Amino acid sequence: MTVTATGDGPTVLAMMDFTADGGATLGHHVVASDSPQLRVMDLAATRGDGVFETISLGDGHAQALEPHLRRFAHSAALLELPPPDLDAWRTAVLATAAALGPVAEGFVKIVLTRGVEGSDTPTGWAFAASSPDHTPARTTGIRIVLLDRGYRHDVAQTSPWLLAGAKSLSYAVNRAAFREAARRGADDALFLSSDGYLLEGAVSNLVLRDGRRLRTPRTDLGILEGTTQHDIFTWAEAEGYECSYELLTPDDLAGADAAWLVSSVRHAAPIRAVDGVERSVDRDLSDAINGYLRGRTE
Amino acid sequence: MTVTATGDGPTVLAMMDFTADGGATLGHHVVASDSPQLRVMDLAATRGDGVFETISLGDGHAQALEPHLRRFAHSAALLELPPPDLDAWRTAVLATAAALGPVAEGFVKIVLTRGVEGSDTPTGWAFAASSPDHTPARTTGIRIVLLDRGYRHDVAQTSPWLLAGAKSLSYAVNRAAFREAARRGADDALFLSSDGYLLEGAVSNLVLRDGRRLRTPRTDLGILEGTTQHDIFTWAEAEGYECSYELLTPDDLAGADAAWLVSSVRHAAPIRAVDGVERSVDRDLSDAINGYLRGRTE
Repeated sequence: MTVTATGDGPTVLAMMDFTADGGATLGHHVVASDSPQLRVMDLAATRGDGVFETISLGDGHAQALEPHLRRFAHSAALLELPPPDLDAWRTAVLATAAALGPVAEGFVKIVLTRGVEGSDTPTGWAFAASSPDHTPARTTGIRIVLLDRGYRHDVAQTSPWLLAGAKSLSYAVNRAAFREAARRGADDALFLSSDGYLLEGAVSNLVLRDGRRLRTPRTDLGILEGTTQHDIFTWAEAEGYECSYELLTPDDLAGADAAWLVSSVRHAAPIRAVDGVERSVDRDLSDAINGYLRGRTE
Repeated sequence: MTVTATGDGPTVLAMMDFTADGGATLGHHVVASDSPQLRVMDLAATRGDGVFETISLGDGHAQALEPHLRRFAHSAALLELPPPDLDAWRTAVLATAAALGPVAEGFVKIVLTRGVEGSDTPTGWAFAASSPDHTPARTTGIRIVLLDRGYRHDVAQTSPWLLAGAKSLSYAVNRAAFREAARRGADDALFLSSDGYLLEGAVSNLVLRDGRRLRTPRTDLGILEGTTQHDIFTWAEAEGYECSYELLTPDDLAGADAAWLVSSVRHAAPIRAVDGVERSVDRDLSDAINGYLRGRTE
């Protein structure tokens, strides 16, 4: 399966500049986005040893930038990478977004790696592009399958070396989950813990609606704290919804009035089938959430 | 923790050539090994989405090359990458090894990635370098810790999308295991299944000796089939040892007469402590095994 993550149109690439002795951040410089920039012994390429974030752009505005930067730093800490200089990264995100221009929807992906093996200098970049059209996923919805992630729900506490909850570059399993979903006729996957709790999508968070209540899996389950889910909860609480973080099971999903996988670029994709069983889609609330998400100016 | 995987001296890099429409393998071309060759949107760098092998060189001879190539193809199949053209890869390994020259000990690392996101063309390379001196690990031995890998022993059968048993580029967890070992005053880690069975080292296989019997964990436990362990077993059987693949527990390790973590480049590293508990090292057999491994001419 080929995933085309970028829409048509130009792309912008800025490489971060670090000092050679310890990796203090100097700034960034823009380069041709299709030029080779990485050495083959960069630990990103040989070990998936780095972290990333994807920040959505709505009409040119970087959305939820500060939460993304905070999570970037958190992931780096989990991998014991040098703490990213968030001011320098913020500047790089805004500069690449500005250079891309005010596309209707786009994104900036930021990546920090441990650098070339044997060096003490990290590698980092910010890559900006327009997004493909996610309207079908946002309106018609997506079919998902439930896949065992193999880890117990408490793995982040018992085995921190497994890096559960870090947004690392070691995402081969997430990509394999998409292929397994496609093999089963679905669009996406929702991971379960080995002891049966709902976790997160392959690159998204789960949100359930029951009446005027929204629920998402607890963030201590070795999953990513969702920046988009967080924004949705803030908006929904202002709209009068009660929002909570809980230990959820497949029965909660099956019984919910509506369910979404939410993420930075695709936004809220209503779930219209789980393991081949059709379920109802809340078109009105999907439209309201996605309208809010697309319109964010910060 | 910085891991310096290459010794001093020159390095050689060959990039594989693929057709743009579907990725048929054309051959390879040698480039400056410190030149940037990868685009930042290569899925190796953004998703750890590829596979690799490390083939040791003894006095210039590529060792266990065919088993490494077979395992490379097996890993590619698990990740649903295009099947590597093993003739072309063999040629690239031998060419880079020849260009490196007859170093006493070296390696060629081969990598196949899914290529730049949105393209249908893989990326591949062969990188040859001399090895650092592993004499202390081979003689004095290594201190290890047991770390829960989080997966049950049958995960490869129940959840193939977790890619257990594939030598993928998503090795951030393996690197985190080394850091956790260092934090506990050890040199290396041995993974356990969540249900308590011995699996493999972070980048090695386990071999136990009880009298004239050698044992290693079964290969259906979501672990890599060890090319070095396989060569050791072939040699040991000729020396009169009985060799077997078994379901092993920490009690088997504690009770064994001797134990090693074995891998392509470091060869056989005797285990001299487990979780801080010292254990005896079989210096004679370690020397015999490593003498055999270093002397292989194929």
